[in-house]
Amino acid sequence: MSQYPAFDVMTATCPSRTSLARIANKWTAMVVIALSAGRMRFRDLRTAVDGISAKVLTETLRDLERDGIVTRHVFAEVPPRVEYELTALGRTLQAPLQALGHWAEAHIAEVLAARESYDARQ
Amino acid sequence: MSQYPAFDVMTATCPSRTSLARIANKWTAMVVIALSAGRMRFRDLRTAVDGISAKVLTETLRDLERDGIVTRHVFAEVPPRVEYELTALGRTLQAPLQALGHWAEAHIAEVLAARESYDARQ
Repeated sequence: MSQYPAFDVMTATCPSRTSLARIANKWTAMVVIALSAGRMRFRDLRTAVDGISAKVLTETLRDLERDGIVTRHVFAEVPPRVEYELTALGRTLQAPLQALGHWAEAHIAEVLAARESYDARQ
Repeated sequence: MSQYPAFDVMTATCPSRTSLARIANKWTAMVVIALSAGRMRFRDLRTAVDGISAKVLTETLRDLERDGIVTRHVFAEVPPRVEYELTALGRTLQAPLQALGHWAEAHIAEVLAARESYDARQ
C-alpha cells in the first residue's frame, strides 16, 4: 500500500508500524480530539476524555509527547501548572482521528444492528 | 465534537465508544487495508498483515464480522474454503484507516527524531 517506498506499515519490522500502533488507538484518538480545542490541563483532559483513568491518560500523554505529537508547557507556579498542546505534527492528526470519531458516531446504529444480528446467529 | 447529537464518543457510556475502540485499533486498520484489495482467505490475510498471530487475526475478524464491517463467505468444499470481504459498511472505513497508515509512513522520520530527542532528555 505504501506511497512512501522506504516505509510500509504492513511489514512487521518497519518502524512505521510502531507509529501506526500509537495513532490507531482509541485513547490517542480521544486525546487528540480533545486537544483540538486548544491546550488543556491534565484535569480538564480527564474530564473531556470521559472514563479515562489517570494512569492511562498519563501514559498516553507521555507516549504522544515522545512521538512528537503533544508538547507539555510547564509553568513555574506553586503548585506547578502543566498544560498539554498538540504540536504542528500532532495537528496533522486531527482530521484523520476526528474522521474515526465521526465514523463511530455516524454508523453506530448500523453497527448495533449488525451485533444484534450476529449474536442471534450464534 | 459530535455532529450526531444522539451519540458522542467522548462520553464513556455512549455505544459509539465501543465502535471507536474497534476501529481505532492497529489490527483493525491493517486488516481493513489488506481487504481493500478484495476478498481474501485467512492464510493470505495472515501473509498480508505481517506479524499478526493466528489467534489475533481470528479474534479481529470475528469482532469485525460482529460489527458488520467484514463478511465471511463459506464454500462447501473439502476442505471448506472461507473468504473474508469488506461489507458496504466496511468499505466506508477504507479511506479513514488508509489515511492513518499513510500518516504513519509519511511522518515516521519526524516521529523517530522526536523519540530520539525525548529519550535523550530523560
